[in-house]
Amino acid sequence: MGNPTRVKKLINDPSDVVAHALEGVARSTPGAALIEGTSVLVRTDLPSDQVAVLCGGGSGHEPAHAGYVGPGHLAGAVCGEVFASPSADAVLSGIRAFRGHPGVLLVVMNYTGDRLNFGLAAQLARAEGIPCEMVTVADDVALDADDDVTAGRRGLAGTVLVTKAAGAAAAGGASLDEVARTARETAAAVGTMGVALSAATVPSAGEPGFVLAADEIEIGLGIHGEQGVRRESLRPADELVDEVVATVCDDRGFASGDRVAVLVNGTGATPPMELSVLLRRALENLESRGVTVERAWAGTFLSSIDMAGFSVAVLGLDDARRELLDAPARSAAWPSGSGVVAGGVPTVPDAGDGPAGGAALADSGVAAPTDLRARVEAVCAAVREAEPRLTELDTATGDGDLGTSLSRGADAIVAELDSYRWDDPVAVLRGIAATLRRAIGGTSGPLYATGLLHAAEHLANGGSWATALQAGADGVSDLGGARAGDRTMLDALFPAASALASSGSVDDALGAAREGAAATETMAPRRGRSSYLGDRVHGHRDAGAEAVTVWLAALA
Amino acid sequence: MGNPTRVKKLINDPSDVVAHALEGVARSTPGAALIEGTSVLVRTDLPSDQVAVLCGGGSGHEPAHAGYVGPGHLAGAVCGEVFASPSADAVLSGIRAFRGHPGVLLVVMNYTGDRLNFGLAAQLARAEGIPCEMVTVADDVALDADDDVTAGRRGLAGTVLVTKAAGAAAAGGASLDEVARTARETAAAVGTMGVALSAATVPSAGEPGFVLAADEIEIGLGIHGEQGVRRESLRPADELVDEVVATVCDDRGFASGDRVAVLVNGTGATPPMELSVLLRRALENLESRGVTVERAWAGTFLSSIDMAGFSVAVLGLDDARRELLDAPARSAAWPSGSGVVAGGVPTVPDAGDGPAGGAALADSGVAAPTDLRARVEAVCAAVREAEPRLTELDTATGDGDLGTSLSRGADAIVAELDSYRWDDPVAVLRGIAATLRRAIGGTSGPLYATGLLHAAEHLANGGSWATALQAGADGVSDLGGARAGDRTMLDALFPAASALASSGSVDDALGAAREGAAATETMAPRRGRSSYLGDRVHGHRDAGAEAVTVWLAALA
Repeated sequence: MGNPTRVKKLINDPSDVVAHALEGVARSTPGAALIEGTSVLVRTDLPSDQVAVLCGGGSGHEPAHAGYVGPGHLAGAVCGEVFASPSADAVLSGIRAFRGHPGVLLVVMNYTGDRLNFGLAAQLARAEGIPCEMVTVADDVALDADDDVTAGRRGLAGTVLVTKAAGAAAAGGASLDEVARTARETAAAVGTMGVALSAATVPSAGEPGFVLAADEIEIGLGIHGEQGVRRESLRPADELVDEVVATVCDDRGFASGDRVAVLVNGTGATPPMELSVLLRRALENLESRGVTVERAWAGTFLSSIDMAGFSVAVLGLDDARRELLDAPARSAAWPSGSGVVAGGVPTVPDAGDGPAGGAALADSGVAAPTDLRARVEAVCAAVREAEPRLTELDTATGDGDLGTSLSRGADAIVAELDSYRWDDPVAVLRGIAATLRRAIGGTSGPLYATGLLHAAEHLANGGSWATALQAGADGVSDLGGARAGDRTMLDALFPAASALASSGSVDDALGAAREGAAATETMAPRRGRSSYLGDRVHGHRDAGAEAVTVWLAALA
Repeated sequence: MGNPTRVKKLINDPSDVVAHALEGVARSTPGAALIEGTSVLVRTDLPSDQVAVLCGGGSGHEPAHAGYVGPGHLAGAVCGEVFASPSADAVLSGIRAFRGHPGVLLVVMNYTGDRLNFGLAAQLARAEGIPCEMVTVADDVALDADDDVTAGRRGLAGTVLVTKAAGAAAAGGASLDEVARTARETAAAVGTMGVALSAATVPSAGEPGFVLAADEIEIGLGIHGEQGVRRESLRPADELVDEVVATVCDDRGFASGDRVAVLVNGTGATPPMELSVLLRRALENLESRGVTVERAWAGTFLSSIDMAGFSVAVLGLDDARRELLDAPARSAAWPSGSGVVAGGVPTVPDAGDGPAGGAALADSGVAAPTDLRARVEAVCAAVREAEPRLTELDTATGDGDLGTSLSRGADAIVAELDSYRWDDPVAVLRGIAATLRRAIGGTSGPLYATGLLHAAEHLANGGSWATALQAGADGVSDLGGARAGDRTMLDALFPAASALASSGSVDDALGAAREGAAATETMAPRRGRSSYLGDRVHGHRDAGAEAVTVWLAALA
């Protein structure tokens, strides 16, 4: 036992992580297979008249690129060890799998090792008579393109859009030249920049490539654990997106009137919630420039193992390129839907309660007791007065909010007393239910509301007041799922309803409720927060059951 | 400046994270809109003859559930605050948006707040005349189903499969009863269990809900930051998956002959690479039980904000349910492809070099110099002898591996000397290229290999030995992207090739190479590792250029 890796990852051993991950992908990619003895995943069902688009590079960027192998997308992925280029011979094996096809396009991210090994493999393949082209993606706008002191711009997540477009072109029957041109033009039209909140931990290294303080981030990240172009303080998401999008737009010259697609990419440990926050701002920012965003994605498309952070890729669009992005693809990691709603956040008005709702609020025809309003007022007063006692009981056995919750409900009813239609008891019960629903959070609001609604329906359907309490109690049980003996308000409510139904006397009901509430002192909790307290609640009365006696006493 | 939240997340403020994330989703979900004043995303393009399937609950579980709103999937998502149920009124707004449709199905995860608020909303909707049903998902097998002391089993990521099936049924024209039955039966057929490596940090709380040591995990996780059912030591991924799958299978009675779908879910901060490692084992384990896995997914489908961890959901399948999972859906977070390859990891044999490759290795017809083998042996000896000098030079300005790399290449050539076809110089150069490609990693292998291949092609196409060096140098430049003056091997190779081409004398070529190599002492590095060292390399000769003089001297 014990993880031999000592690094907190869901892996078996650093030495087999690439093979295991790739086997997982291969097993869930119908129509594809691993070339024996390699880390190369290839489609076995690519129609022989289609160009094969291959991508690859070091592993650690999942779901890129093996997750995109499938119809309409990649024909194969050549996977190296973590953050290390595959060998030229591995790439050549991938190319050779498509001998007999009209050609093979290699899409490569601009890193020296990848460029050399894929480039050499392309030469070897051509020497064998396999038509093969290579397109390099260098979309990182954080590095100055004119500064040739460095090894040139890196490939980042914009690569995913390049392979999607190229794969679609190939699936559409384009020639190798056409597919290569599609890839080259798409690569030239995309700019990407990223921000890291934490560094990646290579499994075999066991520690992060660098360490950022709790308020530090890296701007201009690399995807292999390289540090970014500068380190600075954490800022709100919108500010980070604004800087990234501005840099991309300045670099690629995106301006008013341009059409683009935007991809917000998570780097491995970035929660989807945050990616959507980033996408929102990317759309706002681009549109504030007059740039029309026609397609958008937020997700983890090209990771850096477990780095927390993101990148934003912006790709210039025309109709043809948009069609390639939209073209059907079927792969494990490409989403089924995409698109952008123009003109800000789309909203629709609330549909309201509609004609049927209005009809339900029409006169029920049920006669109102003359003292209905006085009884409701008495209940509210009693509940308010009982607040300290209910709070004390609930603090001992629950989360302590029952007293204040019911008291707040009573306050709300008192405030809305004039709005209820006192000539129609069904309407009054429904009205009070709506008041409580809005005024009380937690569980009491919905439970009391449903009880009142069920009682109202019972009356509206010709039921008697004597049995309305039973209908309400049943409704509470139905909604909450509690039964008699579960140490809830039902242990007072059910006996009270029975007594009321048989004798018609509220006094009898009150007596039964008091007995029931007292009996909860020896009951084990089964519902709600107190179910986790076990024996500690013994000797304490359930606050919800006690509350029933409070308002029944006021009614009696 | 400075993030007001002080929690290291890509958000603006904890108070607006739900709204901002949902706006991001709404903006990228064509045909959907937010109901004004709510956190409810609804399709505006649902055909009026289709039942609407709604899901929802607290936020923090993205992409669930708003990411699944779209054709063939959810008609809407009702989103509460982080880890808090939406109000019954919010749910009712969502239901009312589909008034006039044949009905509305609410799929709810089994948490008290959600059950009460969605349940009450369903009652209210029915009272308004809107046909509405609710199905509760309680797929967490870590909690004992027979033990009703707790609030019952929780809903976990199996919910995503329930809504997919229900959405497909609705899109297929099923009635409300049929859609509800589909959801209910799917919910009953799925079991899920999870493992947490770290706790979630609720943005407004700013700290994780609990803290796990570097080697601690929680088995039987909850999705709201609840602790699991027990804490233990980190184990290899396969062991964790085995335990989880065994628990699910025991609970749901999956056994030999059964057909299932499996979903490996990341909990927010789990890298895709690890999810694929887990999926691999889940497939292995299930198949070892004789259970046939027909569909599989690995991804972040239902997160717990930024928790690191996973869950595995296993769903019993028949043809009808599989069709519902396969049915087309178009939503931001549902993948475009899925499936499982039966019978273990699929492999295909390497295609080999094929008939064209064989043809390329046929006699070139180029006459071999009689001393070719002797010259190659001399080069190998010289390179081995120069290893210390090259290592010293490269350590000063590069990564120090050039001496050993080239020496290892020379060793390999010596070992394979008898395998080369000495009567054909083209075949010899190609053979040595293949040897070096296999023997030398890094950049030297591919670069020398491509140089040799280009020279071989040059000869094969009728070129002379005098110009073959130029062809090789051009090939190196093409592949590596370096030019003269970049302080690389080319600064010796280019002058040597020029001298050889003009005079035909290897001695002249050697002289030119030596001058070129000496000139690199004052060149600024532009390529490779030394490009990051700047002025520090001044006065040091480039090791790659020096190596050219070593083997040219041996040839001369």
